[in-house]
Amino acid sequence: MSGDVVSAFPFNKLVIFGVGLIGGSLALSLRERGATGRVIGVGRHAHAVERALELGVIDVATTLADEAALADALKGADIVLLAAPVAQTRTLLERIVPYLEAQTLVTDAGSTKSDVIDAARAALGARIAQFVPGHPIAGRESSGIEAALPDLYVGRNVVLCPLPENAPQAVERIAAMWRAAGAVTGTMSAAQHDRVFAAVSHLPHVLSFALVDQILASPDAELKFSFAAGGFRDFTRIAASSPEMWRDVCLANRTALLAELDAYTGELVKLRAAIDTGDGAALEALFARSREARTAWQERGGRRVADASPDK
Amino acid sequence: MSGDVVSAFPFNKLVIFGVGLIGGSLALSLRERGATGRVIGVGRHAHAVERALELGVIDVATTLADEAALADALKGADIVLLAAPVAQTRTLLERIVPYLEAQTLVTDAGSTKSDVIDAARAALGARIAQFVPGHPIAGRESSGIEAALPDLYVGRNVVLCPLPENAPQAVERIAAMWRAAGAVTGTMSAAQHDRVFAAVSHLPHVLSFALVDQILASPDAELKFSFAAGGFRDFTRIAASSPEMWRDVCLANRTALLAELDAYTGELVKLRAAIDTGDGAALEALFARSREARTAWQERGGRRVADASPDK
Repeated sequence: MSGDVVSAFPFNKLVIFGVGLIGGSLALSLRERGATGRVIGVGRHAHAVERALELGVIDVATTLADEAALADALKGADIVLLAAPVAQTRTLLERIVPYLEAQTLVTDAGSTKSDVIDAARAALGARIAQFVPGHPIAGRESSGIEAALPDLYVGRNVVLCPLPENAPQAVERIAAMWRAAGAVTGTMSAAQHDRVFAAVSHLPHVLSFALVDQILASPDAELKFSFAAGGFRDFTRIAASSPEMWRDVCLANRTALLAELDAYTGELVKLRAAIDTGDGAALEALFARSREARTAWQERGGRRVADASPDK
Repeated sequence: MSGDVVSAFPFNKLVIFGVGLIGGSLALSLRERGATGRVIGVGRHAHAVERALELGVIDVATTLADEAALADALKGADIVLLAAPVAQTRTLLERIVPYLEAQTLVTDAGSTKSDVIDAARAALGARIAQFVPGHPIAGRESSGIEAALPDLYVGRNVVLCPLPENAPQAVERIAAMWRAAGAVTGTMSAAQHDRVFAAVSHLPHVLSFALVDQILASPDAELKFSFAAGGFRDFTRIAASSPEMWRDVCLANRTALLAELDAYTGELVKLRAAIDTGDGAALEALFARSREARTAWQERGGRRVADASPDK
């Protein structure tokens, strides 16, 4: 199997911008499976990439400040992965484009796709066909290179949002990279991706942060936190996520997120009316259908590979 | 220690109305620790109490349909625990009061307190001093007698909301029962209790049910569930809770819950404006203070014994 993966997907040079949890885990995974040659890490700050070098995640550590090293990093690159916060996409691509060779494919790991594609079109212009947008659905509560794991992507979905300009072989090459890391790949449009993740990921994060903020702002916050138990713990686990990342996601996926937030406010209006008027039947019906859907979701494995348009 | 507990808290007969997760776990725990004599289980339906009898959780199984058995159950009882859904409180107490002896204390395990106290006053009248309202902060995703555990209360908070009519010894006796089951006891007013739990428990449940309902109602529900991952899983774990129980809680704690829901809607309006106007600084500040509070809460053990007015 490992031999198949390597023969189906050989490449010699991978360049990762942002060697944290996401980029570092891909590097570890591909190296462990013998699916990549040299891995170059490029960071905003020297300390992060140097730590990745020490940990053996990458072979060469480069910072954006060093133009010559950047040029050198991109020379002969097979694949460039952007694994920095999505707000940096345009700037990074503008730094990359002068050195981008014709055979190099660029992909990303951003949680939002329409904005990333806009940024890529602005930065890459006529070379947009070299950019294949992607989103691995994997993460951990902790972030940074120390949290990287070689098995992070095993069995996880990776969504690719191919552009009309992408050659099918280019999309397949990026998909094969993720499959080599153990992931299951599928494709959908960027608009569909952004709607789906606004609903199942971005909105819950916003709602979780909002609940903690509300308790914090209340006069008896200390007492409330003292008696918060298991329900609060699970509901707010994602409120311990990176503020910078989630600020960027909210702004990058603004349109889809606002639509979900407005629909949610509508749900709360409906629930409020049922509570206020004592409409127990309406409450029980809503709770029961939610419970049934949540239980069914859990029973089929908590997540499921989309059969929308799978690559494989 | 166990010897101390028993000598500080000897009783011969415990009657539990509703032998499910909550009532069953208390029975198992007290029996295992030798802190109770006979345990009588009273249920709405024969099958549940009979199953508890088979499992050795109780010594006698009684149903509400059998008036003579009910009278017998309450004869010489030291403590009566109501562990049925809160909406049944008044009916149960009306059934109990004709047989309630002067030495018997009644307590409950309901998630809401003001409504339970209203129901108790209506049913018990001049004998209200015998009722000590309580709420063990413990639970599991599964319910029913099969889910009962002897260690469910170990290290958990139990909140008592003493009435002005309660003798201090009566409150202490109920507190001692919970401590014998391994719990840590504290007291607060019913109004304070209902505000605290509306914020940290009831509101998150409503929000979690609402999110699943919103996804269900959307045209691409199937695709969304397919790509829902860890954040969704944790945020919606409590949406698998009992619809009947949560309907009752919402109605029973209507006033405090509506206040929290309105405050939350205000939070969402604030967040919506920040997203809509692209106010990244406001978003990041809100997310950062929530993350800090959530992380601090986790680090101090996820919950903490209230020092508001501890019994011990």
